[in-house]
Amino acid sequence: MAVYTDVSFEDLEALLDNYDIGAPTSFKGIAEGVENSNFFLQTTKKSYILTLYEKRVAAADLPFFLGLMEHLSKRGLACPVPVRSKSGNQSFILNGRPGAILSFLEGISLRRPEPIHCAAVGAALGDLHAASQGYAIKRQNDLSLDGWKILASQIHQRSGDIHGDFKSLISNSLSTLTMEWPTALPSGVIHADLFTDNVLFVNGKVSGLIDFYFACNDFYAYDLAIMLNAWCFEQDGAFNLTKAKHLIAGYRSHRELNAEECAAIPILAQGAALRFFLTRLYDWLNTDPGAFVSRKDPLDFAKRLRFHMKAKAPAEYGLWL
Amino acid sequence: MAVYTDVSFEDLEALLDNYDIGAPTSFKGIAEGVENSNFFLQTTKKSYILTLYEKRVAAADLPFFLGLMEHLSKRGLACPVPVRSKSGNQSFILNGRPGAILSFLEGISLRRPEPIHCAAVGAALGDLHAASQGYAIKRQNDLSLDGWKILASQIHQRSGDIHGDFKSLISNSLSTLTMEWPTALPSGVIHADLFTDNVLFVNGKVSGLIDFYFACNDFYAYDLAIMLNAWCFEQDGAFNLTKAKHLIAGYRSHRELNAEECAAIPILAQGAALRFFLTRLYDWLNTDPGAFVSRKDPLDFAKRLRFHMKAKAPAEYGLWL
Repeated sequence: MAVYTDVSFEDLEALLDNYDIGAPTSFKGIAEGVENSNFFLQTTKKSYILTLYEKRVAAADLPFFLGLMEHLSKRGLACPVPVRSKSGNQSFILNGRPGAILSFLEGISLRRPEPIHCAAVGAALGDLHAASQGYAIKRQNDLSLDGWKILASQIHQRSGDIHGDFKSLISNSLSTLTMEWPTALPSGVIHADLFTDNVLFVNGKVSGLIDFYFACNDFYAYDLAIMLNAWCFEQDGAFNLTKAKHLIAGYRSHRELNAEECAAIPILAQGAALRFFLTRLYDWLNTDPGAFVSRKDPLDFAKRLRFHMKAKAPAEYGLWL
Repeated sequence: MAVYTDVSFEDLEALLDNYDIGAPTSFKGIAEGVENSNFFLQTTKKSYILTLYEKRVAAADLPFFLGLMEHLSKRGLACPVPVRSKSGNQSFILNGRPGAILSFLEGISLRRPEPIHCAAVGAALGDLHAASQGYAIKRQNDLSLDGWKILASQIHQRSGDIHGDFKSLISNSLSTLTMEWPTALPSGVIHADLFTDNVLFVNGKVSGLIDFYFACNDFYAYDLAIMLNAWCFEQDGAFNLTKAKHLIAGYRSHRELNAEECAAIPILAQGAALRFFLTRLYDWLNTDPGAFVSRKDPLDFAKRLRFHMKAKAPAEYGLWL
């Protein structure tokens, strides 16, 4: 929620000499994404987002992320498309940061989605998984079981300071996940962070998916499990089964789940809750409280994690074969 | 450089029910202005800026600021215009903050203006002063001589901690200004903060003036003196006489200066430098260094203040009758 790296009009003019996208008519830093510096750019031709990638996005991963958006877009998915420079490059270096110019998508994120929105975004996830097939580059998911163990060990001591219960919650969940995490489910490129912030709507319909900077190769059903966490819990911590049914039905209308995927949903949902619980806890412990960055409270995900640890069957998520 | 108050899509939808500006298609917090929370809003009809006024803008002053922009715009000046709601209101309260929806202006601020830009912005200031005539509401300038004395006394002790020389610099300048500050020059509504951030350009021409939240009644020539400080010093502290000549010539081509105004330029420029020196020093001393807000270094204005204290005649600003 900030612009970390400054770009002057004069920097911009020099950069745009390498592109064939018209002359700039408006350029404003936008306050979204805790990870990168983003600017809204209007030219005499169109609107764009100029992004400079800050420390969390490794420059080595940019060809995967930018290539993926181009691949998905060519297959009809509404997502930002990196604009290639006159010499064909998808990225550049500006003020010491790698960056890209991406097409601008209309639409606004919802804060309080209704079941009908969950159905729409479930369908969009099915489309994303279908469209990603055939993408040549691979990227390992650093935030799966092995990554969670590393994160857990880094915050082990201090997590207990926040809440006395957190240390045992994490170690109990990690034991279960180590034993029960699936090894062979249908896999491919997943978004891995499809929270409400990253889905744009116009008139109640999905107009685009954004922020692919956690995308990686993993189980498709894990992406759905992330969305069960992100879209189907209420502010008070209650699981909204109606939203879950709509999300899953929307997904299955565009990509079917097999029996193994259905059976794995409770453990995948637990893993997803632990993933966000751990990263939010890590950020909470490692962010200067004085810094003007919106830290996300890890407590929400502690509650969700406990919910999934008690869940016994896919039916508790509204899921039947 | 931040969004202080959050506005959800659902908040926005409820607000727009009171307006006749179409349905929202894009809504993004923008990272500009240290004073307010600003959002870029696109609707099915047009683009707008939605502003929520934070602590530095007093709600009681909003009718002056918003009415002024409407007045100026009706007289042909390119500036943001507050959109009136269906019931004719220029402002609203949202999430505890007063706010307004303003028309969006194309254009980008320059970081390193050339003499030709100084001429253009001088002319625009002349237009602003001409267009502001007849505006019925008045607002006293709290940041003139009396205000500087109050600010100086508030930071007196601590200013010496930043630089040993600052205490005598401030008190010497205040003595001179107290004796020599003009009492009767042509007056009216001035912008009072026309730095490069607040002037938009498209293709080298001024496309709009923005950020009227320091506007007040004072000497017209003081507004020009502020711009001599804001536009005519180089990064290394040198005064660029060519830029000053262009700025003044541009201004005089749209509003003539009389003999008293010309003679007063050196003392007005000194007052303007002291005003920004004091407020930046105040902010520097009162901002938590950990907070993610861009503090502006007061040192630049200490240098400019010293320059003006040594200036003997209007000719040193490229000004002849």
